[in-house]
Amino acid sequence: MSSHVTHPFAEPARAWFETLRDRICAEFEAIEEELAEGPHAGLPAGRFTYTPWQRAEGGGGTMGLMRGRVFEKVGVNVSTVFGEFSPEFRKQIPGAEEDPRFLATGISLVAHPRSPRAATAHMNTRFICTTKAWFGGGGDITPMDKESAESLEDAAFFHAAYQRACDRHDPTYYPRFKQWCEEYFYLPHRGETRGLGGIFYDWLGDRTPGKGIEADFAFTKDVGLAFLESYPAIVRRRMHESWTEAERQHQLLRRGRYVEFNLLHDRGTIFGLKTGGNVEAILMSLPPEAAW
Amino acid sequence: MSSHVTHPFAEPARAWFETLRDRICAEFEAIEEELAEGPHAGLPAGRFTYTPWQRAEGGGGTMGLMRGRVFEKVGVNVSTVFGEFSPEFRKQIPGAEEDPRFLATGISLVAHPRSPRAATAHMNTRFICTTKAWFGGGGDITPMDKESAESLEDAAFFHAAYQRACDRHDPTYYPRFKQWCEEYFYLPHRGETRGLGGIFYDWLGDRTPGKGIEADFAFTKDVGLAFLESYPAIVRRRMHESWTEAERQHQLLRRGRYVEFNLLHDRGTIFGLKTGGNVEAILMSLPPEAAW
Repeated sequence: MSSHVTHPFAEPARAWFETLRDRICAEFEAIEEELAEGPHAGLPAGRFTYTPWQRAEGGGGTMGLMRGRVFEKVGVNVSTVFGEFSPEFRKQIPGAEEDPRFLATGISLVAHPRSPRAATAHMNTRFICTTKAWFGGGGDITPMDKESAESLEDAAFFHAAYQRACDRHDPTYYPRFKQWCEEYFYLPHRGETRGLGGIFYDWLGDRTPGKGIEADFAFTKDVGLAFLESYPAIVRRRMHESWTEAERQHQLLRRGRYVEFNLLHDRGTIFGLKTGGNVEAILMSLPPEAAW
Repeated sequence: MSSHVTHPFAEPARAWFETLRDRICAEFEAIEEELAEGPHAGLPAGRFTYTPWQRAEGGGGTMGLMRGRVFEKVGVNVSTVFGEFSPEFRKQIPGAEEDPRFLATGISLVAHPRSPRAATAHMNTRFICTTKAWFGGGGDITPMDKESAESLEDAAFFHAAYQRACDRHDPTYYPRFKQWCEEYFYLPHRGETRGLGGIFYDWLGDRTPGKGIEADFAFTKDVGLAFLESYPAIVRRRMHESWTEAERQHQLLRRGRYVEFNLLHDRGTIFGLKTGGNVEAILMSLPPEAAW
């Protein structure tokens, strides 16, 4: 039991998540360069800083953080960790009851633009192995004003990219994973969704029937690329619009709801904190500023 | 089982908590009037607004909220609610297994001053009856800079008031309830306390041996008065000091930790949200603005 679990797809998945991180971060830095007008155009263009971290039990990751002039804060974390699940978690995780060893590799990103007119967005894709192996992931968009024509247009554009990615693999994926996203990113105490959705899937190839590990990996790559294809375009479309102080205040309140979701309800956050994950990396998703 | 549970002390306790609220709010409004210099002296003095709310199952309360020039945000809630505990909670609550009916009356307050040099503070006292009856409560102080001489001085002053209140009733109370506070207001994922402590006690007269319900009520009154005696004086002592932008930024980060505690760990918050309490009243404790 001292050697750690592995899988032929663990290394290719890790490599892909890092490539995806590099491509998204390059795109975000290009956006920072492009800003030409507005209240923050006089600031220097943002650049990511990367901080590697080690996990005592095994593995580690790299936190990427940018505080820029278009993006008030972006956190992007890639990690590959391994070890054994505590008895508390063994029954909840597929394949861990027989053998508690696991390996998890993934990318997680949350972007909070300065402009209240540019939506906040989140994406995460991951590969987990125990005695079983599966992919999970998704992406979702949170416009600050959920009802404006521009927000609905941006959300439709975001969804369309994910739908194309899904449809290339299975026509049932988009409607199912869209609904899963709506159910997951929901604040029961407020009776509202976090944003305007996207897709969410988990246990693909295990509890959620997939198309074989190779096809599931290909799908997960396309899910990552759908984010790259849609979200930067949405930010570019909005970043030169001006905004009012009232819109900023409303943005800070909506970000407060984002904090409530992440700390009260997000399974990933609570799981990470309870299993002794890297606190800074886990909480990098929290907004730069929020209000109540 | 249709009539609700009651107790000879329920009505006097409710009346006391409302009196205490009135006295604290009057003191806070006086402080708002007194501000004579500093970056926000040009703003109008704050005044509390009070919003009554009803609970579908029984009872209700009043949310008091002030957004002023000394106090960026103060939330003070008094409520008296009754009903039946859901099966999930019956085993956790003393005396509820035999008969799930309960009555709870209390006051809860959190003050967030604008100045990073004036500490945030929290106080709560409550009376709960099931087939048993008990008091609980406390107060704790959260200076933004936990290590400055001024913060330590303010915390010592705050603790001294609570110690005097405790010592009048039982010499063992202060050391025990001080430690309970340190254990309760602790962020395990950060490995740090929320602030510089105070006192916390629960189940006084039931699981925590008290001195009879009358003496426990008298003690709980003194705990409320200790807050009135100490915290306004601390705010008055600091409110005319100037502060730097760096101190403000640090304050916003410390407030982020406050949010993390309240949403991840605070038993009262999570209990309230899970039992269908008034969301606005429960989350009134969150800071007006926070950063990560």
